[in-house]
Amino acid sequence: LLIVGELINASRPGVAKLISQGNSEAIHEMAASQIEAGADYLDVNAGTGSKSEAESLAWLVQTVQSAVDAPCCLDSPDPKALEQALAVHNGPAMINSISLEKQRWDGLLPLLKGTPCSVVALCVSDEGMPETTDQRLKIADRLIHGLTAAGLEPENIFVDPLVQPVSVNPSYGPAFLNAVSEIKNRFPKVKIICGLSNASFGLPLRFLINRTLLPMAVERGLDAVILDPTDRKLMSGLRAALALSNRDPHAMGYVRAFRAGGLEE
Amino acid sequence: LLIVGELINASRPGVAKLISQGNSEAIHEMAASQIEAGADYLDVNAGTGSKSEAESLAWLVQTVQSAVDAPCCLDSPDPKALEQALAVHNGPAMINSISLEKQRWDGLLPLLKGTPCSVVALCVSDEGMPETTDQRLKIADRLIHGLTAAGLEPENIFVDPLVQPVSVNPSYGPAFLNAVSEIKNRFPKVKIICGLSNASFGLPLRFLINRTLLPMAVERGLDAVILDPTDRKLMSGLRAALALSNRDPHAMGYVRAFRAGGLEE
Repeated sequence: LLIVGELINASRPGVAKLISQGNSEAIHEMAASQIEAGADYLDVNAGTGSKSEAESLAWLVQTVQSAVDAPCCLDSPDPKALEQALAVHNGPAMINSISLEKQRWDGLLPLLKGTPCSVVALCVSDEGMPETTDQRLKIADRLIHGLTAAGLEPENIFVDPLVQPVSVNPSYGPAFLNAVSEIKNRFPKVKIICGLSNASFGLPLRFLINRTLLPMAVERGLDAVILDPTDRKLMSGLRAALALSNRDPHAMGYVRAFRAGGLEE
Repeated sequence: LLIVGELINASRPGVAKLISQGNSEAIHEMAASQIEAGADYLDVNAGTGSKSEAESLAWLVQTVQSAVDAPCCLDSPDPKALEQALAVHNGPAMINSISLEKQRWDGLLPLLKGTPCSVVALCVSDEGMPETTDQRLKIADRLIHGLTAAGLEPENIFVDPLVQPVSVNPSYGPAFLNAVSEIKNRFPKVKIICGLSNASFGLPLRFLINRTLLPMAVERGLDAVILDPTDRKLMSGLRAALALSNRDPHAMGYVRAFRAGGLEE
């Protein structure tokens, strides 16, 4: 399971300031600690919509990649910012994210054509957020067909079926989880990615909800997740879930993490 | 989701002693604390195979039911012990457990005929433990047909698909979880029950594995679980899992538990 470290994000308290200060040492540290904790990709978000986004995003990419040998997940809706970030990025990046919204689709597709990049394809369209599994499947279907028609390999498409708050609609949990298995059934080569925290919006002890959702999604076949890899409890649950779903044969990764002192109940 | 409290079990350290001493006060307390924590049934096990099992089991039933107004889950393979326990039990008990093993089946079936009792039907036969989902389904099918042919209502049958150690065979996790959804698909009125702790046999931090399995099984449709309801972490994960799988609409039970101080990350 691929882990995208979410910490270098200007919407998080303190991070916007580090970016505006050009504090590369602090960014180095956030990059290194996430990789050490098991991240495969590092999300970089320079404050979407900020005036200096393009410049800051490129700076983040260079700063991160001067500290760690890992690809970034370029988190922006702005084609210009993405273009500048891609220009300085070493190796194939992940782009976060395209969607069926016309402006987003038209803006990002040209960037993706002919590149070896991966892309997060968010199940959102101009009709809004999907409510049901079926609506997710329809959007996913159009996203996948459109992206492969543009030359992307299915292996490089990470569909995000959209986690939504169960406090708003109790069917949102199953709607998301069923979408994970259904999209995997229909498009076995395509990957499924998600974030967790929207699930718990409006509820107390949000972390308890988020950490409980992760094993459920892993069990359904989730391929990648955007999370804080330095959160030991969250990562411990993930490792247990992998062992329980035959994705960590004989729990070797689980035992290795235990021996390294990385597991917590 | 039905909760069977597992604490009053002679195989647990200290409990055998309480039983041999006839310490009814301690048993009262174990009964009350489990009910207060959310148990619907209380498992009572007087030491299967002990010379005084029948007498002790009946004493446990009377002692428990003098403290709490709840049914017991009579945990014994011995028809004589079960018969004596049933004779003093108020209301319909749950019997834990019948299986396809000939001796067990022939011994317990007569007790069940014509009673309003529920029964745990363990997916084990004289050919041994099942390895695959398919083997579980075959045993479940024979158990369910045999029990309904004997007059039991499907609603009173709790099939236990058998949780096995993933350290022994990495496919045991999916084999169990797929059996949960498959048995529910084929027999919608029949209930599914399990314990958790066998999953983690042979692994470090066993609780981490057990608590991670529970949301996965809940998500597949588990109807009942045998666990320690006074374990706040385990119960908190269960409440989160119910909210995430649309089995606790609008997370009302989750929020209620939070307000009562009963949730823990």
